[in-house]
Amino acid sequence: MTAAPPAGPFSEESYARAALTYLAEPADQWLNGLISAHGATRTLEAIRSGRLPDPSGDLAVPRFRQQALQRSMERWRMRLDELPTPDEVIAFRTSGIRLICPGDPEWPEQLADLGLDQPYALWLRGTADLRFNCLRSVAVVGSRAATAYGSYVAAEFAASVAARGWAVISGGAFGVDASAHRGALGADGVTVAVLACGVDVPYPVGHTELFEAIAAQGVIVSEWPPGRTVSRLRFLVRNRVIAALATGTLVVEAGERSGAVNTARHARDLGRRLMAVPGPVTSDQSAGCHRIIREWQGTLVTTAAEVIEHLSPVGADLELTAAPAVTAPAVTDPASSDAGSPVDPPRPRSSRRRRLRPALDLDAMDLETTQVLDAMPARGGMATTRIAQRAGMVPTTVVRCLATLAASGFIERCDEGWRLSRG
Amino acid sequence: MTAAPPAGPFSEESYARAALTYLAEPADQWLNGLISAHGATRTLEAIRSGRLPDPSGDLAVPRFRQQALQRSMERWRMRLDELPTPDEVIAFRTSGIRLICPGDPEWPEQLADLGLDQPYALWLRGTADLRFNCLRSVAVVGSRAATAYGSYVAAEFAASVAARGWAVISGGAFGVDASAHRGALGADGVTVAVLACGVDVPYPVGHTELFEAIAAQGVIVSEWPPGRTVSRLRFLVRNRVIAALATGTLVVEAGERSGAVNTARHARDLGRRLMAVPGPVTSDQSAGCHRIIREWQGTLVTTAAEVIEHLSPVGADLELTAAPAVTAPAVTDPASSDAGSPVDPPRPRSSRRRRLRPALDLDAMDLETTQVLDAMPARGGMATTRIAQRAGMVPTTVVRCLATLAASGFIERCDEGWRLSRG
Repeated sequence: MTAAPPAGPFSEESYARAALTYLAEPADQWLNGLISAHGATRTLEAIRSGRLPDPSGDLAVPRFRQQALQRSMERWRMRLDELPTPDEVIAFRTSGIRLICPGDPEWPEQLADLGLDQPYALWLRGTADLRFNCLRSVAVVGSRAATAYGSYVAAEFAASVAARGWAVISGGAFGVDASAHRGALGADGVTVAVLACGVDVPYPVGHTELFEAIAAQGVIVSEWPPGRTVSRLRFLVRNRVIAALATGTLVVEAGERSGAVNTARHARDLGRRLMAVPGPVTSDQSAGCHRIIREWQGTLVTTAAEVIEHLSPVGADLELTAAPAVTAPAVTDPASSDAGSPVDPPRPRSSRRRRLRPALDLDAMDLETTQVLDAMPARGGMATTRIAQRAGMVPTTVVRCLATLAASGFIERCDEGWRLSRG
Repeated sequence: MTAAPPAGPFSEESYARAALTYLAEPADQWLNGLISAHGATRTLEAIRSGRLPDPSGDLAVPRFRQQALQRSMERWRMRLDELPTPDEVIAFRTSGIRLICPGDPEWPEQLADLGLDQPYALWLRGTADLRFNCLRSVAVVGSRAATAYGSYVAAEFAASVAARGWAVISGGAFGVDASAHRGALGADGVTVAVLACGVDVPYPVGHTELFEAIAAQGVIVSEWPPGRTVSRLRFLVRNRVIAALATGTLVVEAGERSGAVNTARHARDLGRRLMAVPGPVTSDQSAGCHRIIREWQGTLVTTAAEVIEHLSPVGADLELTAAPAVTAPAVTDPASSDAGSPVDPPRPRSSRRRRLRPALDLDAMDLETTQVLDAMPARGGMATTRIAQRAGMVPTTVVRCLATLAASGFIERCDEGWRLSRG
C-alpha cells in the first residue's frame, strides 16, 4: 500500500506536534504526559508562555521535581526561534517529507505500547505506507561490525521474509542493518529504515544511495525533524521505535553490549517476539545472540521460515513450500490469497512466490472490517472513498480496515484502488 | 581414583553375566527381565537347557510372543559353543581387561536408570575407576564429519571441563569424539571411551594409539565381550550407555540425523541434562545442535564454565576463576578442597588448577558417608581396608562412600590410599 498523497494544511494539533519534535528530544515522559492531558497545542502554548500547566491528576509532580521540569521548559523555549512556520512545515511535502501524528491513518497504533515513551510525531520519506507495512514486519538488527557470516545471514533472512510479504525494519547503519535493507530491496520487498537523524540526512554518508532506494521502495522514518543530525544517545532512543513498530525482532549478530541487544531488550519489554540467529561460539559478534537465547528466552531461529512461523498466529503462514499456480484456489474464495499480494510494490518474482494462508480468520474479524469486506466489489477494483461510501463508514476507519484485510491477504492493491485478492 | 586391582575368581553370577554378553546383544528387555527375576546363573542354565523359565509376574508374556522369545533362546543357544570358560574369562585380566557387574564396587549405579535396557555387565580396560569418574562427567558427542570449528570446540570444552575435574565421556569415533578424548587427555584429565566393539578391538584402526592413551589415563568401556567387532546397530545401542553414564550430555556438532542426536535423545529420555553448542546456521553440522535447543529445550552453551554451571548442584562449581594457592583454606577445613584432586591421575598443571566448592554439603551427607569421613585419619593417608575397619563397615560400602567423598572434594588419593584433601 503506498502512502496517501499529502493533502491540505496541517491541523493545529499536528503542527504543534511537529513543533515539539523540534523543541524536545523524544521520549520525554513529562512532555508526553502534558500532551496527553492538555493536547499538543496547549502544551506548545505553555512552552511559549514559559508557564507550567496546572498540575492535575497523574501530572502532579512533587515540588522537588518542579525545578528540573522548569529547566526542561527553559531548554525548549531556547529553541523556539528555530521553529519553522506551519507553511514551512507544509513545504517539506514538496521534497517528499510528510508528518504523521497519532490518529492519522498512517500512524502505527502499536506505538501506543510505548506509553509515555511514544513519539510525539513521526517524519516520513518514501513511498510505502508505514502503518500498513508494519502490520506484518520483522525488525532485523545487528552489529555494525558484522562478519561475512552476519551480513550473509541478514541479507538472506531479509530477502526471504520480504519475498513472503513481510516488511523488514532496521536502522540504516553499516553491517547487519544495511544487509537487511538490501536483502529486502533485492527481493522486491518493503523495507523501513528508522533513523536517529532527520529523514533527509544521509547518515552514514556511504548509505546515501541506499536511503534513496529505501525511499523509492519503502519508507524512512524519524522522530527528529528534517535536518537534525545524529548523536550517540539518539541511536539508543531510536531503538525503542524499531522494536515497537515490528511484530518481532530478530538479532542476527551482536556483541554483548551492542545497540542490537538494546533493541532486543526493548522488544522483550514491549512483549514483542524476540528471536536470534546463533553463530560460532568463537565469534564475539554472536555472543549477544547467544545471550538473548540463553538468558532472555529468545527463540533460536535458523531459517526465515522459522522466523515467520514464530511471528504468525497459530496455523497461519506455516505452508511455506512453493505451490504451482494451477493449485491456487478459485478467485471467489475470499479466504485464499497470495502472500505476495499485500506487499507494495507487490511484484515478487515468481520463483519466490509462496502460498500462505491468510493471517486473519473470517470468524475473528471485527464488525467494521467485515462491513468493509462486504462493501468490496465482487470483481474489479474500487477507490477507497467509494468503498467508504458503500460501507457507510468514515474514511479513516475504512483505511484501517482495508489495511487489516490486505495484511491478511483478503484484498490487494490495483490501479483503481483495492480489489478482492486473486487466487 | 584408579581401578581396584583384580582379585580372586569371579562369582558364579558374574561369570553368568559375562557369558550372557557373549550370547545376546545388549538391551534385550526380556533377557534383562529373566536376569532380574531369576538371576543370571539360572537364566544361563535356562538357555543351556532350552527351556523357558515359568512366566511369572511382570515376565508373563502373551502366548503370541512366546514363539519370538523361543527363537531368541535358540539364537543364544547357537552361540553356547563360543562361550569362554570361567578360567578363560579370568585370563583376560592378564591383558588388562576386567569385568564389572551390577553391585560391584566399580559398577555405576546410575545405569539402573536404563531399566530393562541396562547392560548385563561391562568390560573395562584402563586405569581409571569407572564409577568414581562418572560421578562428575560430561558426555561430549558429535559428528564424525566434524568441521574444524567442531573439532576445535570439542577439544577446548573437553580440556576445560577435564581440567576442572570432570571426566569426559565419548564414543571413540573420528571427529568430535576423538577431539573430546584428546582434549581431556591433553588437560591431564580422565576420559571414558564407550565402544561398540570389544575393549581390545581398535576400531577405527586409526585410533589405536588414542585408545592406548585412553587406557593409560582413563578407561575404555564396552557391553560387548573382548574380540567382538562393531556393527551399525551396535553404535546406536551403545549410545544409551554414554547418555546414562554421564551427568549430562553436550552435543558439539551434529547433523539432523546423526548418532549424536540419538545420544541426545537418550539423555533427554533419561532425564539427564542436555546441552548443545550453537554454530553457523549455514552449517549442516550444527543443524542437530540447533534442533536440540529449539525443540528439545536443550541448553545453549558457549563456554565450558556454562557446561559445569548447568551440571552442578545449585551453588556448587560456580567459582571458576583461578585463585592463587596462598588463598586456599586451611587443611583442617574438611569442607574445602581442590577440584583437581579427585581426578586420578590427579596432577592438573598448576596453571589449570581452579578452586571449586565441594559438590556435597556436610549437612546433606548420609550417615554411612559421615562415618567414613569420621574414620579418616586427621593427617596422612590410609588404605581403604584400614578405613573400613576403623569405620566398622563392609568394604563395598566404604568404597562407595570414599568415591562420594572424593567426588565432593573432601578426600583425595595418596600413595597410602586416601587422605583428607589438602587446601
